[in-house]
Amino acid sequence: MERLKNIVEKRDTHEGRIFDVIIQIVIFISIFTFSLETLPNLTTFEKEILHFVEVSCIIIFCIEYILRILVAEKKLDFIFSFYGIIDLLAIIPFIFLHIDTSAVRAFHFLRFFRIFKLARYTRVFVRFQLALKYAKEELILFFSATIILIYLSSVGIYFFEHETQPEIFSSIFDCFWWSLITLTTVGYGDLIPITIGGKVFTFFILLIGIGIIALPAGIISSALSKARSEMETIEKERKRHGKTL
Amino acid sequence: MERLKNIVEKRDTHEGRIFDVIIQIVIFISIFTFSLETLPNLTTFEKEILHFVEVSCIIIFCIEYILRILVAEKKLDFIFSFYGIIDLLAIIPFIFLHIDTSAVRAFHFLRFFRIFKLARYTRVFVRFQLALKYAKEELILFFSATIILIYLSSVGIYFFEHETQPEIFSSIFDCFWWSLITLTTVGYGDLIPITIGGKVFTFFILLIGIGIIALPAGIISSALSKARSEMETIEKERKRHGKTL
Amino acid sequence: MERLKNIVEKRDTHEGRIFDVIIQIVIFISIFTFSLETLPNLTTFEKEILHFVEVSCIIIFCIEYILRILVAEKKLDFIFSFYGIIDLLAIIPFIFLHIDTSAVRAFHFLRFFRIFKLARYTRVFVRFQLALKYAKEELILFFSATIILIYLSSVGIYFFEHETQPEIFSSIFDCFWWSLITLTTVGYGDLIPITIGGKVFTFFILLIGIGIIALPAGIISSALSKARSEMETIEKERKRHGKTL
Amino acid sequence: MERLKNIVEKRDTHEGRIFDVIIQIVIFISIFTFSLETLPNLTTFEKEILHFVEVSCIIIFCIEYILRILVAEKKLDFIFSFYGIIDLLAIIPFIFLHIDTSAVRAFHFLRFFRIFKLARYTRVFVRFQLALKYAKEELILFFSATIILIYLSSVGIYFFEHETQPEIFSSIFDCFWWSLITLTTVGYGDLIPITIGGKVFTFFILLIGIGIIALPAGIISSALSKARSEMETIEKERKRHGKTL
Repeated sequence: MERLKNIVEKRDTHEGRIFDVIIQIVIFISIFTFSLETLPNLTTFEKEILHFVEVSCIIIFCIEYILRILVAEKKLDFIFSFYGIIDLLAIIPFIFLHIDTSAVRAFHFLRFFRIFKLARYTRVFVRFQLALKYAKEELILFFSATIILIYLSSVGIYFFEHETQPEIFSSIFDCFWWSLITLTTVGYGDLIPITIGGKVFTFFILLIGIGIIALPAGIISSALSKARSEMETIEKERKRHGKTL
Repeated sequence: MERLKNIVEKRDTHEGRIFDVIIQIVIFISIFTFSLETLPNLTTFEKEILHFVEVSCIIIFCIEYILRILVAEKKLDFIFSFYGIIDLLAIIPFIFLHIDTSAVRAFHFLRFFRIFKLARYTRVFVRFQLALKYAKEELILFFSATIILIYLSSVGIYFFEHETQPEIFSSIFDCFWWSLITLTTVGYGDLIPITIGGKVFTFFILLIGIGIIALPAGIISSALSKARSEMETIEKERKRHGKTL
Repeated sequence: MERLKNIVEKRDTHEGRIFDVIIQIVIFISIFTFSLETLPNLTTFEKEILHFVEVSCIIIFCIEYILRILVAEKKLDFIFSFYGIIDLLAIIPFIFLHIDTSAVRAFHFLRFFRIFKLARYTRVFVRFQLALKYAKEELILFFSATIILIYLSSVGIYFFEHETQPEIFSSIFDCFWWSLITLTTVGYGDLIPITIGGKVFTFFILLIGIGIIALPAGIISSALSKARSEMETIEKERKRHGKTL
Repeated sequence: MERLKNIVEKRDTHEGRIFDVIIQIVIFISIFTFSLETLPNLTTFEKEILHFVEVSCIIIFCIEYILRILVAEKKLDFIFSFYGIIDLLAIIPFIFLHIDTSAVRAFHFLRFFRIFKLARYTRVFVRFQLALKYAKEELILFFSATIILIYLSSVGIYFFEHETQPEIFSSIFDCFWWSLITLTTVGYGDLIPITIGGKVFTFFILLIGIGIIALPAGIISSALSKARSEMETIEKERKRHGKTL
């Protein structure tokens, strides 16, 4: 039992690492199979192979899930933990075989987050959470500002372009789509203003908008560097205290 | 009267928060109705429902406006304050029913900014104003540089592309539109240079331009982090002074 | 003479500010006229008006230029200064009437930079120069990396797409255009990879490339904030020294 | 021999700099020739000229390679160094004349990096490596997050758009291409969601995604500024120690 625990739960043992890598590979195969199945023009033979691979993956996930429950000290805690629920979702297709499980299979990818459980990433996550805590209010402010800006510019472009291009800028909702695609600088080119008013309006909206939409990334990255320096200070403090003791 | 004040003006009381949430929801409904009305192919019945919802919203805004005036200690100050004017704009459709009030209704959205009046966001706003004050001169400089760059590149592309594509790059104004859409990296694809000269010119303009256009966001976010640390220093100072007193 | 100097050269006197504003307006009119002239389908009458406005602007620039020389203490220094040369370029059309001076007129825009001669902008300019000095080596490194990246990705996409789309990805030069438009995220959509190899290649190139191309803006803005704090330290030092004297 | 070393290896001597510049020019010519050869509709005469230029360049590279080996003190070390291997790759076409070496020739561009061997760039490189070391964990985290985000959004858009546009959003792989081009804000416009569900999904994915994809650049540039200040501290320390000795 102790040995099983070393394999399934621990990450710093040799067996644990091999177990982890195998599970990661199975997750990747299962996701890739899922993507392949959406390809059009598959032959019946190819479909059968993909189905076989899929069922195999789910069986492995089932075994993994049972092992994890067996190994867990507080079994209920594991079952209702974040990873426990994801693991359960990953094997549901096996239990209800006839349901169209493609939606569920998308959740397989969430299992990739396990990779972050690795010890060395824990610190980065703590740092990221700390950065989010610092920047929370500013982020809410700028996301609200972004949404208000997108709405206002969609109302604006509607007044300028609706009459000239009634088919394309047909309602505020279409204009909202235009605002989103333009202000994020994606620029598909399916809705393009052609009136002078609409173009001048786009000019002002873009000059202001790009600054606002690019801000969250700047805020997070400066909060991250603040969190990093704060955590380093705390660690140094700890080391010094450790010395004086 | 005191009780009414608690409901309408205060935000930290239980009733005040409920009042606020209700007004926010009405604002959202009114904006959504406004957007829905622009949909083409609405039936008469649907139009009537939307009109009814709209009138109801305006009545609620009227009541809110009267309540706010009643409750305000300096009534004139409220009427001519930023929020007072927005509130008035929001109910104008009720008073002059025959005016096309769609433009006015767009202002409803501005009322969403009320949400930021909440105490906890005040600090973020102060910080943002401080950051803007720090970065003001740099922002003016780079916005000017951006406009000059967009103009110069539109003159440049006009000389390269006008002869080959006289229909598309027909005047400096069309080229200005091209510069805007290209330098902001939106890239609709309605105006595309095809001459070698125009492409080489685009290459240099883009390499320089992207740096310049992305700068304001960087400047604001670094000014924001400076403002944050400054405000923290002031707060610490205050706490220390509080202690020593 | 002293009075003339106050008007033409000084910026803190009342007359000086009025003179400046007038010149700025004339510059703007001259640029706008220049842009209007490129509009197709102008009537002869409209062309004549535009030509008249243009000649008027140049006469004003001539008067301004002569005034500035008169007022300048070191006349030769002014003539060969940056602004002196720009001012001269602006009046060349008056001297050589038959040359197509449209290209030169685009430089009128540079005269707007005079506005930054104001004391408070001088500091921003100094700060920006300092920031560029700090970041110079990094900027050269990343601009080189950007050009190398664009070249390598154009070679890569050529090998993937040339055979399938020989008309569109016809040579390395066309692919270079594709790399530029893709890596700067402009994305016109005139050249789009369609092979699986080309798409996978684009995936890797984009993930790496976006980071590299966005770096210069980040480097400049962090250098700017460093330059700002350094200049503040120097100013504080100066004040303290001023006190102790 | 000592003189030859001054020319080939040293960069601070007059002859060394001339030698370097010549080699850089030859590299540029060789790359440009390579690009020109991909042009369609070349005449036989033009092809012959290009071939002649190409062979000349390779001969010069051969001479350079031999000189570098002659001059190197530890010849084997040079041969197996990064630059040694790149130099060898550049002359392989000369040795195996019948192989299609065009792919290898693209690597000629890497030889430009020699320019950064100059002392002042060494520091920038060291700083960049230091910055990468600081930011390594965060970069891995956000690149993983980017890939997971792109995958999840491709699964999402598949469910929304596949039924309505089965030809365009035909499989998860096509949707993956859409996610990449949209989230990086390239926005070619070859795959555009048209269902309401798909557009609303794009809205949420874009608002979150842009922040995540822009983060690596912010992280690297803040790590760079940290590395810069750290290296300055170390240099100051060294100077102080130098003084006390």
